[in-house]
Amino acid sequence: MATSDTLERLEATIAARREADADSSYVAKLHARGLNKIAQKLGEEATETVIAALVEDRTALVGEAADLMFHLLVLLSAKDIPLADVLAELDRREGVSGIAEKASRTS
Amino acid sequence: MATSDTLERLEATIAARREADADSSYVAKLHARGLNKIAQKLGEEATETVIAALVEDRTALVGEAADLMFHLLVLLSAKDIPLADVLAELDRREGVSGIAEKASRTS
Amino acid sequence: MATSDTLERLEATIAARREADADSSYVAKLHARGLNKIAQKLGEEATETVIAALVEDRTALVGEAADLMFHLLVLLSAKDIPLADVLAELDRREGVSGIAEKASRTS
Amino acid sequence: MATSDTLERLEATIAARREADADSSYVAKLHARGLNKIAQKLGEEATETVIAALVEDRTALVGEAADLMFHLLVLLSAKDIPLADVLAELDRREGVSGIAEKASRTS
Repeated sequence: MATSDTLERLEATIAARREADADSSYVAKLHARGLNKIAQKLGEEATETVIAALVEDRTALVGEAADLMFHLLVLLSAKDIPLADVLAELDRREGVSGIAEKASRTS
Repeated sequence: MATSDTLERLEATIAARREADADSSYVAKLHARGLNKIAQKLGEEATETVIAALVEDRTALVGEAADLMFHLLVLLSAKDIPLADVLAELDRREGVSGIAEKASRTS
Repeated sequence: MATSDTLERLEATIAARREADADSSYVAKLHARGLNKIAQKLGEEATETVIAALVEDRTALVGEAADLMFHLLVLLSAKDIPLADVLAELDRREGVSGIAEKASRTS
Repeated sequence: MATSDTLERLEATIAARREADADSSYVAKLHARGLNKIAQKLGEEATETVIAALVEDRTALVGEAADLMFHLLVLLSAKDIPLADVLAELDRREGVSGIAEKASRTS
């Protein structure tokens, strides 16, 4: 399976399209509209993910979760934050959490 | 760097902790509170990500983006949707988008 | 000033337009799209209110707050809940809160 | 029924409590935590309203709608925007909308 690097490839695509023509690229159009608009889109996709999880079907939720991840990558790109920094933070917490869990098991 | 499989490992950890004691595991506690509560947490983290992107510093945004991804994985787990399905949907769109972009370039 | 009954008048207008032609009435169009869409719009307007409060000007925030109230009234209408029920709940809490505050002052 | 001035009274109460002791007043505590936190609470209440509308009962939705209105008033207070300005904006739109509707009926 080749999905494990999907987000890294998507991040690269988003970076490449940031400077494209806003008429031909959705990413370029979002960037042209500015950070407020990108943040607003993230909020919208989160609401749609919530709704899909509660009252829509599996296919709808997969689609909304993909939209949410995509717009999170666009937002990170707009702030020049590498996805790797977010993944490293998740790794760090997992380590902390693993240690905490181990400690709680032995106590 | 080994971050490309961070989300897959996190997904496995979340799956393993779903049935743990709610007192010792945050994931188990969220699952015990039910889907509505998990969806609510996703919405909260999205709002916090929006706020961090607009008015907080880089460290805050990295932390909120990590929170948002984590709670999205918990929500997908609660609905028994593999992360791979969401990544496959992103791959599929990227392919479609690549084709569309190519078509628009040649037209 | 005649604003104190603005929300009641708006509620009546929304009720009257629910059954109008979706082409001529925004309220009718929202109702035709269903509860999920109305709830989604409420979430969107809340995100826009958050963004306006943090990084936009006063006029923008007034406009977004008005949008949020309007869509909340549309949502309540879609669920056949009178605005008076929500206002009565706020009155009830205010009474409870007043009593609690008084108690805390005398303790 | 005397609910039509509920929001005005609530606005006055919120203004009076802004400077109270954060230990005894929820409004004072929110203000002490700052605008970001108040905006975050608004976002949370909106998500809870969406969830209540879709999958909870009538009582839950009334409660969440009251929470949302309350936190919107706290946010407006934090930005020194009178509720009357938001109601005036709703009145203004209603007037515009009424004219537009009339125009569309005669066309």
